[in-house]
Amino acid sequence: MSEERYQQRQQQLKERVEQRVAAATKRCGIVIVFTGNGKGKTSAAFGTAARAIGHGMKVGVVQFIKGEWESGERNLLERAGAEFHIMATGFTWDTQDKLSDTRAAVTAWEQGKRMLADPAYGLVILDELTYMLTYGYLALDEVLTALENRPAQQNVVITGRACHRDLIALADTVSELRPVKHAFDSGIQAQAGIDW
Amino acid sequence: MSEERYQQRQQQLKERVEQRVAAATKRCGIVIVFTGNGKGKTSAAFGTAARAIGHGMKVGVVQFIKGEWESGERNLLERAGAEFHIMATGFTWDTQDKLSDTRAAVTAWEQGKRMLADPAYGLVILDELTYMLTYGYLALDEVLTALENRPAQQNVVITGRACHRDLIALADTVSELRPVKHAFDSGIQAQAGIDW
Repeated sequence: MSEERYQQRQQQLKERVEQRVAAATKRCGIVIVFTGNGKGKTSAAFGTAARAIGHGMKVGVVQFIKGEWESGERNLLERAGAEFHIMATGFTWDTQDKLSDTRAAVTAWEQGKRMLADPAYGLVILDELTYMLTYGYLALDEVLTALENRPAQQNVVITGRACHRDLIALADTVSELRPVKHAFDSGIQAQAGIDW
Repeated sequence: MSEERYQQRQQQLKERVEQRVAAATKRCGIVIVFTGNGKGKTSAAFGTAARAIGHGMKVGVVQFIKGEWESGERNLLERAGAEFHIMATGFTWDTQDKLSDTRAAVTAWEQGKRMLADPAYGLVILDELTYMLTYGYLALDEVLTALENRPAQQNVVITGRACHRDLIALADTVSELRPVKHAFDSGIQAQAGIDW
C-alpha cells in the first residue's frame, strides 16, 4: 500500500470514529453481559473490575457458583479493595440438592440486591448469575427490577452461559463468547493462574 | 422438576465433567486468543492477568495500540507487579504515518519477543497484536516462531479483531467475542473504569 493510500485510509477511519464518538452523548451506567460457551466471560468481568478499581471506583462482586478453591483474581482484587461475596456451594453438579442450592443462591442475591441499591458501588459484578435463572433458583422479575431501579451511574457486569433473553434485552452491551477451540478439548489440564 | 429428577440430572452432569477432567492429562502453558468484534477482549486478557498475579505468576504485558491516556487496568496491575510496555502511538487512525507506526510496532514487539524467550514470565499478554499483523507492521512468521519456541510452561494471551488464521491454528484456546449489542450504538459515552 502506498503512503498516500495509507494516509487516506487512516483518515477515513479517523472520521468514522470521530462521528461515532460525537454521536454518543448520554452519560449513564451500563449493564454489560458476557455470555456464550467460550472461555473468558469471568475473565472479562474481572478485567473490567481491575479497570474500575484502577480509576478509583468501588467494586462489589457476587460470585454465584465458584468459590470452593483459592481464586487468583479474588486474591488480587480483594487486596485492591473489591468486596467479594461468594455463594461457595461449589458447582451445582457437586451438591445435587435443589433446596440448599436455592437457599445459597437467594442468600448471595441478597448481597447483590444490596449493592444494586447503593450508589457507592460504581461497578457491581454478578458472576455466573445466568445459571441461577436457568435453574430457577432466583426469580427473573426480581433480578430485572433490581437492575432497572439501580443508581443511574452504576455499572453492572453479568456473566454466564445461556443468558435469559429478557436480561439481554435490558443490557446495554452484550458480547457472546463463541468457543472456537479450548485447550481442555486437546487434553490440557486446567491450571492455576489461567483457569481459576 | 422433582427432587429426584434434579438429583439425577446433576449426577449425569457431574459424571460428564469428571470424565472430561480425567481425560485432560497434559500440563503445559497455553496460547489463548480473544478475537472478534465484541467488547471484552482486552478485559478478558487483563482478567487473566489479575488471576495469574493473584497466584504469584510474573506477568508481562505489551500493548500494541492503546496507551495515550491513563488506563485503569494498568494503574492497578502495574502496582500489583505486572510489567507493562506500551506502543503509545495511539490509535493508528490518529497517526497516519506508516513508517513511524511500523517502527513503533517493531520496538514494542522486541519487548514481547524478550518476554517470550524468558521462562520467568508465567503469562505474557500481547494486547491488540492482531492489528500489527493485519496492517503488516510485523512479520507473521516471526511472531509464530517466537510463540512456538517459548518456554513450555509459559502462557500467552493475544487479543484483537480479525486474528490471522495461522495464529488461530497455533493457539490452544480461542474465543470469538461476537457483539450482540453495544452501549455506544445507543448513544452512551465511553467512560473511565469501563472502556479504558
